[in-house]
Amino acid sequence: MPRVCVDKVVEDLYILRVDDDETRYFEALWSIPEGITYNSYVLLTSEGAVVFDAWKHTYADLYVEALRRVADLRDVRYIVTHHTEPDHSGSLPKLLEVTGNVPTVLGHPIAKQLISAFYGVEPRFRAVKDLEEIVVGGKKLRFIYIPWLHWPDTIATYIADYGVLLTCDAFGGFGLPKTLYDDDEAVVEWYKPFVRKYVVDVVGHYREYIVKNIEKIRSLNIDVKIVAPAHGLVWRRNPKEVIDLYYDIGSAKPSEGKVLVVYSSMYGIQEKSMSIVVEGLRARGFKTVIHRFTDREHASLGDVLADAIDAEAIVIGISTYDAAPFALVELMIKLLVEKVNAEKPVLIINTFGWSKLSEDTTKNLFSSSRFRGVDIVSVRGAPQRSDVERIKQGVEKLVNSIRK
Amino acid sequence: MPRVCVDKVVEDLYILRVDDDETRYFEALWSIPEGITYNSYVLLTSEGAVVFDAWKHTYADLYVEALRRVADLRDVRYIVTHHTEPDHSGSLPKLLEVTGNVPTVLGHPIAKQLISAFYGVEPRFRAVKDLEEIVVGGKKLRFIYIPWLHWPDTIATYIADYGVLLTCDAFGGFGLPKTLYDDDEAVVEWYKPFVRKYVVDVVGHYREYIVKNIEKIRSLNIDVKIVAPAHGLVWRRNPKEVIDLYYDIGSAKPSEGKVLVVYSSMYGIQEKSMSIVVEGLRARGFKTVIHRFTDREHASLGDVLADAIDAEAIVIGISTYDAAPFALVELMIKLLVEKVNAEKPVLIINTFGWSKLSEDTTKNLFSSSRFRGVDIVSVRGAPQRSDVERIKQGVEKLVNSIRK
Repeated sequence: MPRVCVDKVVEDLYILRVDDDETRYFEALWSIPEGITYNSYVLLTSEGAVVFDAWKHTYADLYVEALRRVADLRDVRYIVTHHTEPDHSGSLPKLLEVTGNVPTVLGHPIAKQLISAFYGVEPRFRAVKDLEEIVVGGKKLRFIYIPWLHWPDTIATYIADYGVLLTCDAFGGFGLPKTLYDDDEAVVEWYKPFVRKYVVDVVGHYREYIVKNIEKIRSLNIDVKIVAPAHGLVWRRNPKEVIDLYYDIGSAKPSEGKVLVVYSSMYGIQEKSMSIVVEGLRARGFKTVIHRFTDREHASLGDVLADAIDAEAIVIGISTYDAAPFALVELMIKLLVEKVNAEKPVLIINTFGWSKLSEDTTKNLFSSSRFRGVDIVSVRGAPQRSDVERIKQGVEKLVNSIRK
Repeated sequence: MPRVCVDKVVEDLYILRVDDDETRYFEALWSIPEGITYNSYVLLTSEGAVVFDAWKHTYADLYVEALRRVADLRDVRYIVTHHTEPDHSGSLPKLLEVTGNVPTVLGHPIAKQLISAFYGVEPRFRAVKDLEEIVVGGKKLRFIYIPWLHWPDTIATYIADYGVLLTCDAFGGFGLPKTLYDDDEAVVEWYKPFVRKYVVDVVGHYREYIVKNIEKIRSLNIDVKIVAPAHGLVWRRNPKEVIDLYYDIGSAKPSEGKVLVVYSSMYGIQEKSMSIVVEGLRARGFKTVIHRFTDREHASLGDVLADAIDAEAIVIGISTYDAAPFALVELMIKLLVEKVNAEKPVLIINTFGWSKLSEDTTKNLFSSSRFRGVDIVSVRGAPQRSDVERIKQGVEKLVNSIRK
């Protein structure tokens, strides 16, 4: 049985959190041994309860049970769907069933279409407009469109009375923090890398909208005392911390001295060239973070992306396979272009045996991306003396490109 | 310690086999919980020993130890390198070291370049020509070029006295058969699926050369009593069996009634459409083999390819993700095109939420391949009544295309 937490966030606002340690691949894509939580919120008012988002369908029964602990199901008046992705909306059909389809679902107009398409249900639905306010039992709810975080349907809700911003995916993270809140700094520090990973993996393709939406929220001049996302920690000690973190990730801000090194090595041969790269970078004081595809290990795609977003530079070692780029590194580059796509310098090492990759083939992998290629060093087999020199020159160019 | 077997194959020919159960990803790509063997052969003659291929570098010390059990290292006169891929040539530097660089390496001219590039060693080398014969201690060795199985360097050796064809990768397979030989039919039946997987995964890109090279060998009118590959079973009871099996795989011969179904489903929604496909096919008597990418499992790429090569038809379910094809299914299609690329009918299901894939996007995934697209059925979310009809029509088209 997964861990379920029900707690009062503030006054009449409750959190219902379930810790999912069963999902191996979030979105069927990202390996998450760290797990993920789904947070739903319930606001109790004199005119009924307002439910904000729910849990994944696998936890629908547990969800209803948790909801019963804070509200009478007959009192649920509104269900706010901030974002229709099924990790939040999956329990909605069950919730509608147990509430006799009485509550009105509030959301972006697109949410109505998606609820119908995903679940074949047609609840009472009321589309909310950007910045629209409603009052329920004296509590003012203000809906804020935050498009492309990470679907076109995404909205947030601001509860003015409590200064709570309910943000669904925005400001969320992977991981199962042992606390519900950001009160413990040690928990926060442990959790931050999982936030970075979540943002890049899930929202990365639209990361410019992270910056835009944060600027939009800031421009509203609302007093945000608590940021309550649908994954991970609730931020009440220092909500600014997660907003700033998201802003940095959204703008791909580099951590000084961090270089991502990712490569394939089928039989340890390309690894020899990559060792020269790593030694060269470390000798210059850089911290290299290494991910590989070898006969013993396959890098976690989502972790590579997480280490790319705040790298100062990236080095990629591409094996040649069937006279083409090694498939998993090609996939990795594709994801880097789709999810990270930042103005970071990139050094390519290409190891080949009987067939060298053309420079065009390699360059095309990055076509129409913002990455800045600084050099492509092709090495036949293990690096010989002249190759070592060319690799070192490549590292030199990369370092100069960072420091420029 | 891995299992090592040393045995007399026939008269003066010995096999040295090591069972590698440590490699998780062969070629850093294919998941092989079934393991793989490396088989080296040693021919003892009155004029010294001839070694054919060796083992992966991780087993170099074990290899030398095994070799010592059948030959005095000072007697090694020739080392035949049928194929320079490091799973066979990796122990060559060690072998050259312990034999004091005395033996002459025989191989395709490209092998010399690759040995130098991979290991930085320059052994005595003699390039052999296609169909060239040499006599060592009265034993006639005939070298046969079998290009593109699966590199340009690949050759085989025919030992006329014993009717033995040493073929390196050709006629090999994944798996750790409990016997050395094909004597036990139960072992052979257990082993055959791993042969199919090996061929498609490793050699698939050049599969037309499997057919060409088998026809070449047949045209030589040599009496092949034993097929001795560098992976898996030695075929002495029925060598024709593995040659025919390879021919069938090389020509992508379908198994009657087999349909491969491969799809992604992030939250179980596309799975509903795929269930309709599977039910429809089963109702018509087809045997569906299903591989998926979900939150709980990631299909093994190499196993999907193995089930594609002998399928009569293929159904692929593509989720839409960031308004593009789901990355792992896109990779899977890329590998199907690169490794299987056969005239088999393909039905595509595309599930989308807020953004449908264009037909062009889907078709481009198969561009310049031999696959025959029979239909693309796009479904928004879970299948509604009209979608169910369209899916059934798609299945109908697929079935008609098979039976045509």
